[in-house]
Amino acid sequence: MAGDPEAVAKAFTDHFYSTFDTARANLAGLYQDQSMLTFEGQKFQGTQAIMQKLTSLPFQQCKHHISSLDAQPSLSGGVLVFVTGQLLPEGETNPLKFSQTFHLAPVGGSFVVTNDLFRLNYA
Amino acid sequence: MAGDPEAVAKAFTDHFYSTFDTARANLAGLYQDQSMLTFEGQKFQGTQAIMQKLTSLPFQQCKHHISSLDAQPSLSGGVLVFVTGQLLPEGETNPLKFSQTFHLAPVGGSFVVTNDLFRLNYA
Repeated sequence: MAGDPEAVAKAFTDHFYSTFDTARANLAGLYQDQSMLTFEGQKFQGTQAIMQKLTSLPFQQCKHHISSLDAQPSLSGGVLVFVTGQLLPEGETNPLKFSQTFHLAPVGGSFVVTNDLFRLNYA
Repeated sequence: MAGDPEAVAKAFTDHFYSTFDTARANLAGLYQDQSMLTFEGQKFQGTQAIMQKLTSLPFQQCKHHISSLDAQPSLSGGVLVFVTGQLLPEGETNPLKFSQTFHLAPVGGSFVVTNDLFRLNYA
């Protein structure tokens, strides 16, 4: 049982994006070997491959601004999290619009990311 | 087992959006009583409530253009489908950017939509 999906989604995204923005390497604990990331169409599986991609993005710090956050329970007892927002890499002045979907699975009283799909929304 | 997630996602979205654009009421067969729709933050559950929302949108016909289509298998044996694109309601000249996520569950050799989350991406 996923608890309150909205509360899970809010707590998860607060943690995920603040960590992403300031100490991206610390996201590793949110993924596991079965986890999948599709980042701008590129596919990665497992914590190591995902973290290698995320930590090799061409900026060290950035700011995520969330425009919308929706959540639904999934049939498998997880939570689907659907985000739209803006991403501002350090040194840039024009934020990039993005959409991102996470599927969270309950593990030992917490959640891991089993699916992560990210796209920039070009104007 | 979800088969080839990309092939499922392509076949599903081809069918979904062509039906949405021309004969929206025929989407009813894709949902079931457990299905959930979050449409611009409004939540609906079950085929009847979802179809009432979709068929009451303030345009009869429209055109979806898909910009990106990503798919991943989900732990429950389903397929996650993540779409970004543009939506042009009839009579309008400016397309609206949107993002949409579907969670498809296998049922009797086909798929039903268990989760549907839709957002317009305002400029």
